[in-house]
Amino acid sequence: MNALEIIKERYNNSASANDSSKPDIAFIGLGNMGAPMAENLLKAGYKLSVFDLSEAATQRLHQAGARVADSPKDATNNAQVVITMLPAGKHVHSVYLNDDGLLSGLPKGTLVIDSSTIAAADARMVADVANTYGIEFLDAPVSGGTGAAIAGNLTFIVGGSTEAYARAEPILESMGKNIFHAGNNGAGQVAKICNNMLLGILMAGTAEAINLGVKNGLDPKVLSDIMLQSSGRNWTLEVYNPYPKVMNNVPSSNGYKGGFMTKLMNKDLNLAMQTASETKVDIPMGSKAAELYDVHSVQHGDKDFSSIIARHDASIL
Amino acid sequence: MNALEIIKERYNNSASANDSSKPDIAFIGLGNMGAPMAENLLKAGYKLSVFDLSEAATQRLHQAGARVADSPKDATNNAQVVITMLPAGKHVHSVYLNDDGLLSGLPKGTLVIDSSTIAAADARMVADVANTYGIEFLDAPVSGGTGAAIAGNLTFIVGGSTEAYARAEPILESMGKNIFHAGNNGAGQVAKICNNMLLGILMAGTAEAINLGVKNGLDPKVLSDIMLQSSGRNWTLEVYNPYPKVMNNVPSSNGYKGGFMTKLMNKDLNLAMQTASETKVDIPMGSKAAELYDVHSVQHGDKDFSSIIARHDASIL
Repeated sequence: MNALEIIKERYNNSASANDSSKPDIAFIGLGNMGAPMAENLLKAGYKLSVFDLSEAATQRLHQAGARVADSPKDATNNAQVVITMLPAGKHVHSVYLNDDGLLSGLPKGTLVIDSSTIAAADARMVADVANTYGIEFLDAPVSGGTGAAIAGNLTFIVGGSTEAYARAEPILESMGKNIFHAGNNGAGQVAKICNNMLLGILMAGTAEAINLGVKNGLDPKVLSDIMLQSSGRNWTLEVYNPYPKVMNNVPSSNGYKGGFMTKLMNKDLNLAMQTASETKVDIPMGSKAAELYDVHSVQHGDKDFSSIIARHDASIL
Repeated sequence: MNALEIIKERYNNSASANDSSKPDIAFIGLGNMGAPMAENLLKAGYKLSVFDLSEAATQRLHQAGARVADSPKDATNNAQVVITMLPAGKHVHSVYLNDDGLLSGLPKGTLVIDSSTIAAADARMVADVANTYGIEFLDAPVSGGTGAAIAGNLTFIVGGSTEAYARAEPILESMGKNIFHAGNNGAGQVAKICNNMLLGILMAGTAEAINLGVKNGLDPKVLSDIMLQSSGRNWTLEVYNPYPKVMNNVPSSNGYKGGFMTKLMNKDLNLAMQTASETKVDIPMGSKAAELYDVHSVQHGDKDFSSIIARHDASIL
């Protein structure tokens, strides 16, 4: 970027920051995913009030131009839109539904977007309470790791009314590339969990297929190429091969650092098990993948989820 | 095709049928796959001697221009290349290794291509015996169903020496579109079985992911589209969706008729189990898929393998 472009970009940012047609946003939860998502909203010209328990996180956003709030409630002052990006259902419950939770104090017509990955039943419960207060609630979990959050090309899978979805779409487009409307409240969580359960199955299955070939004398790259061009083709063979050195710029060629951590895949598979159990649905393949990731996460929770291949060959790690 | 094109094609075929640079081929095993494969060799101008126990099958090839032989041995008279397409390892064993088996009688330098899907260990054994007789053996199982066999766009996954592979390639190109050299003898069978085990995992996993979504209120097409554009993407979502009416021109929208029969997927998964057991490799996801297809094949062996989704909802069948 040359100097002129830098100046232009600064001008555009500051111009759009004053764009009164854009709603003010409260952003709560500035972790590895939330912080870059909030930064992308600032870059897109939204006025942001942020809250997180970590001072380092809020400082980072302060420097990027956000107002730092003292509490979730403080962050929502004057906000027409609230976005949360929290670790688990209990945090979402606490922020929205506790005695000093947000829902009871927000003005009617506020749009609430929860991008946390939580159980669909929890998302539906929060949505139901929100609706009784006249607040529009969307579950909008994301797919894509921290790299996608930084680059602003996350995938959002959204559940809620068509009207709320239409309000949210331009905001989500500042943080993501693919925005899907999966259905009514809870449908975003259900679709994400179905996708990630399938991803766990694809990864565990692809890892063991490559290992079976290698243990029977095949070259992992030759076998991967054959399956990629045959009916075994799947996302992991396309962009995320689990076998070391078959593909460049993936965690398997970098000591399984970065990427999507095993403990997060483990969490998603357990959410799938919970959803299946609550709705009396049989998921034998998902349950088997969950079992494998449960065991693998004991020692390797912080490694990328493609490291599941090491259960077949410990020398890989 | 207009009249001129038809005449040209006839002329080219008859011209190439007299092309003495092409080896004479013996083709043994004219089932649903073998018959159209043999016909494509005739169309490509190869002189063919054929054998099958079924008179209907040999008559069909006779009318297409093949010489019908009285026995496998008779078929190989004057043949420089032998191709077999047989149901299982025991048939391959019988044709090549029995007392009156072919290998002991073939001239040195004959190229033998076995396109049956059998255990890698069986393929290696036949290859070893062939090599002691100075015969070049390739295991070359196919991927793709009868439609691909008729259209001449099968996938061949080949194991054997580079020299033998080079001799076979132009012949296989008359019957297939993608030809892969997987490695040494047995590697074709190993690669095919790895791919088809993975396919069984993808199909069973995709079916249960869609079912989980549907039972939780999602539209099967909306969920399929989301996963297709996310990290759950795989061959079954791309071209072979198992849920009825999501996709046109696939078995799931045609009562699960045609396609790739459940009993054949069952056979391939059992071959994967056998290969894994013989080489002491753990395949938990493949084993689970094998178990599901074992049960499903009891009642639905002749239905397309995507009908595995009906285990979640009997009303689908």
